Amino acid sequence: HLYFRLPNIIKLLISVVFIMTLFGIIIHFVEPRQFPTIFDGVWWAFVTAATVGYGDYVPLTSSGRIVAISLILTGGGIIAFYISSISSETIKKEHDLQHGKL
Amino acid sequence: HLYFRLPNIIKLLISVVFIMTLFGIIIHFVEPRQFPTIFDGVWWAFVTAATVGYGDYVPLTSSGRIVAISLILTGGGIIAFYISSISSETIKKEHDLQHGKL
Amino acid sequence: HLYFRLPNIIKLLISVVFIMTLFGIIIHFVEPRQFPTIFDGVWWAFVTAATVGYGDYVPLTSSGRIVAISLILTGGGIIAFYISSISSETIKKEHDLQHGKL
Amino acid sequence: HLYFRLPNIIKLLISVVFIMTLFGIIIHFVEPRQFPTIFDGVWWAFVTAATVGYGDYVPLTSSGRIVAISLILTGGGIIAFYISSISSETIKKEHDLQHGKL
Ligand SMILES: [K+]
Ligand SMILES: [K+]
Repeated sequence: HLYFRLPNIIKLLISVVFIMTLFGIIIHFVEPRQFPTIFDGVWWAFVTAATVGYGDYVPLTSSGRIVAISLILTGGGIIAFYISSISSETIKKEHDLQHGKL
Repeated sequence: HLYFRLPNIIKLLISVVFIMTLFGIIIHFVEPRQFPTIFDGVWWAFVTAATVGYGDYVPLTSSGRIVAISLILTGGGIIAFYISSISSETIKKEHDLQHGKL
Repeated sequence: HLYFRLPNIIKLLISVVFIMTLFGIIIHFVEPRQFPTIFDGVWWAFVTAATVGYGDYVPLTSSGRIVAISLILTGGGIIAFYISSISSETIKKEHDLQHGKL
Repeated sequence: HLYFRLPNIIKLLISVVFIMTLFGIIIHFVEPRQFPTIFDGVWWAFVTAATVGYGDYVPLTSSGRIVAISLILTGGGIIAFYISSISSETIKKEHDLQHGKL
């Protein structure tokens, strides 16, 4: 598949955007009052999975909270992994730059 | 024991749910006004231990805050470990998929 | 010194409590209106350094915000290290338990 | 270059301050109402990239939120890396101190 030829960080970025959009759609349908648009839901999913948690959008019902806990327990790992990949990649690039490999 | 035969991630998930429920029950009894139901407490415990911290539920008394600091210093490690396990497991699976082992 | 004979996690815990108390005292004197007691400051320091960030206590002046940024850039590392030590220790213990070493 | 002779942590600190200032300036121009001064924007960038997320400053428009998501996905890695470097450095120093190397 074409997908496997992409660099790892792009693959991870695609997965992150995909999963956040999925959770954004789910929360929009579970709590339409708190999350009036799908983009509100996607914004909330990013803010939650990255553990920023501004508190501007928060689920109020039990089912909404179970969606949020699922997001924390699944999506959180992927965004954390993505972020640590970015930083190790950055370091490797600077190291190469420093040793004249770029 | 049967518990030791379960895959590591399931074991960790069981520990996470167990510890969050424990802290949810404790905070419900320490600050019943701020955490009217046990599920409110469990929700707060997940949101706190995952360091999301929406701020929708916050302890107000000194004893409630000491419970929260204990949660941060104990439960926080387990949820962080659970999340990093998930992400490394995901990566391993994709790696295997890519090399035709699945 | 006696300090060096203590197990690593206890040493880290002592450092964490010490640094949080230090920042709690500093912020209490820099912004006495926002942080009326020293314990309010210590509570804020824990919540900030652990990146929970409830938003119940937030510095409003430039000098208060510079204290907060310093806390994020210094204390944050120590609490993150403490948490990852806890989780790796927990895993090691479970591993030993599983292989009959305890 | 002189930059390459600096210790790693100072280099990382310079990068962190540089990127946070950049995002602070961007958000100030994208949402001038929510972020009235550039320092408000820089403060928000630090609080967001470190995943503290107090919620005192939050973007409200779609373009502001896309800036925030970009900050989470780029700057977050660098601050996480900076924090883990600090903690590993601290540990190494204490280890050396304990074994009489300092
Ligand atoms: K928060
Ligand atoms: K947070």
